[in-house]
Amino acid sequence: MDVARLAGVSRQTVSNVLNGRAAFSRDTESRVLAAMEALAYKPSRAAQTMRSRRTRQLGYHMSGEQLEVMRGFTLGFVQALVKAAAQHEHQIVVFTHLGDDPEPVFRDLIARRSVDAYILDESRVDDARVRLLAAEGVPFACFGRTAPGLPQQWVDVDNVAGMLQLVEYLVAAGHRDYAYVGAGGGEYWKRERLEGLRLGLAQHGMGIAEDKVFEGTDGEIRRWVGELVRGQRPTVIVTSSDAVAVAVVNSCHAAGLRVGRDVAVTGFDGGAVGLLTEPMLTSVRIPVDRIARELVARCLAEISSGPTGRPGLLVPTELAVGGSA
Amino acid sequence: MDVARLAGVSRQTVSNVLNGRAAFSRDTESRVLAAMEALAYKPSRAAQTMRSRRTRQLGYHMSGEQLEVMRGFTLGFVQALVKAAAQHEHQIVVFTHLGDDPEPVFRDLIARRSVDAYILDESRVDDARVRLLAAEGVPFACFGRTAPGLPQQWVDVDNVAGMLQLVEYLVAAGHRDYAYVGAGGGEYWKRERLEGLRLGLAQHGMGIAEDKVFEGTDGEIRRWVGELVRGQRPTVIVTSSDAVAVAVVNSCHAAGLRVGRDVAVTGFDGGAVGLLTEPMLTSVRIPVDRIARELVARCLAEISSGPTGRPGLLVPTELAVGGSA
Repeated sequence: MDVARLAGVSRQTVSNVLNGRAAFSRDTESRVLAAMEALAYKPSRAAQTMRSRRTRQLGYHMSGEQLEVMRGFTLGFVQALVKAAAQHEHQIVVFTHLGDDPEPVFRDLIARRSVDAYILDESRVDDARVRLLAAEGVPFACFGRTAPGLPQQWVDVDNVAGMLQLVEYLVAAGHRDYAYVGAGGGEYWKRERLEGLRLGLAQHGMGIAEDKVFEGTDGEIRRWVGELVRGQRPTVIVTSSDAVAVAVVNSCHAAGLRVGRDVAVTGFDGGAVGLLTEPMLTSVRIPVDRIARELVARCLAEISSGPTGRPGLLVPTELAVGGSA
Repeated sequence: MDVARLAGVSRQTVSNVLNGRAAFSRDTESRVLAAMEALAYKPSRAAQTMRSRRTRQLGYHMSGEQLEVMRGFTLGFVQALVKAAAQHEHQIVVFTHLGDDPEPVFRDLIARRSVDAYILDESRVDDARVRLLAAEGVPFACFGRTAPGLPQQWVDVDNVAGMLQLVEYLVAAGHRDYAYVGAGGGEYWKRERLEGLRLGLAQHGMGIAEDKVFEGTDGEIRRWVGELVRGQRPTVIVTSSDAVAVAVVNSCHAAGLRVGRDVAVTGFDGGAVGLLTEPMLTSVRIPVDRIARELVARCLAEISSGPTGRPGLLVPTELAVGGSA
């Protein structure tokens, strides 16, 4: 006995219902679904994928910094995406581009229908990849905000609120003298972290001297911190990321200081990198598993129903207290 | 003017030549290729992919440890695979399995022809995934050896030779008193690294006392090393991996020792994790970019020509000298 016969419809109609195509009445749908239930019918995933032309794959574009240097955050993010996708029986296609322009590889993947949707991170506010995907009508979701004229398919952390929470903790621990060290680059999330620190201190009637704020490369940071801690040193060095915090911790150790006792250091990320230092980092934790789940859910919603028009989502961070501050 | 007309053959024949199907003569092939050249014909990659049913995707199975803890090596490996695949206009599909058994997700991906070949690492010598792929006739390549009865589609590092090279360096630096710390688990590559150390020391008429060899979890290692270095401590602690070396370095710092001066520590991996310690790790470097290129090349060869029957490939490691030893 097959589903079509029991429901009294054609095989084509069963297929239409299975794949969510439009040309059937609500009554037809009920009969097909009832017949499936009666027969405990379970369509083969492979057959369904082939019929619907869905790949059950989500693309993740990895580029630039993510491919070149130690990025503990990137590993955690890929792991989280792979797990979140597996929960929905999807896989993650990781790809990069050669040369300077990511557009050709996106165009090629779109033409080949290699994946059902795209996940981007490190998105610039006006991101050429986002404009291309939006223009082509391909589902996507970004970790990081998109420009106001583009679909607001993004999930991001609230950097300012994260820093405010950290400042409350540091002020309660008695810190009055602050320095800030960031990686250069000028991305909005780096600016927001410094802004959050300034705002938090201002709320307590404190501030941070301009000569106690430094942004630079890893090597520049090591040199600057080396000099900073040998002079009239602050009680705490707040940083823009765990990767920067590791460089700061190493500089402090090299200067003979005990981190967490002679000087406090904080990170921002809260992933595995901060577990490698001695003592472990006190950090603002980015909830990477939740972000991955939200990104995957947004992609799946657009794959099955088209543009949702939903606003972006700011998720809160949480404080991870290690021994470094 | 199209290629078929210029070559005086049917469109089907042009398609056969393009996709490497067998039913055409050498003369036909020459005429088609000449016509393509004359017309500067460039087949669309998308059209070619659809015709050949190739996905231009290679699957990479990530599981277990790789998803749960800080694994600097896994990030470097994924990055290297993505870059090596991009050189051949291929993408990497990263997937995992839920629950204990990887077989269902492999069967599903094989049934859906989601990827053209599979890349595995952490392969056990008798690996169920390898047996399944070999039985299904699906191209694959492993980072890590396969059992003698299975296709020798693997690339691995020579762990013993790597350790011998490290011992030469340490002996030349004057070290006579050794300890060894490894992660537990009993995989062959962990055993080989300890074997290599013993062999290298034996070649210099030295040895390593049984009570100076320890294997355990991260926490157990920190405790054991803490006691070791407070007693009659060795001049150098050799470890099975950079991740273990980081735990050892932290234990030494916590005991007030300066690594690289009061006691030497070495790793095995040579990736980004060893750059995070102060001083940076002296380590046996696994050439991850070369391994990724070899794995991708082996997959592509089997995708286009079927089983190659090639033997496995052992690639040499190289010594990365940091400040820790």
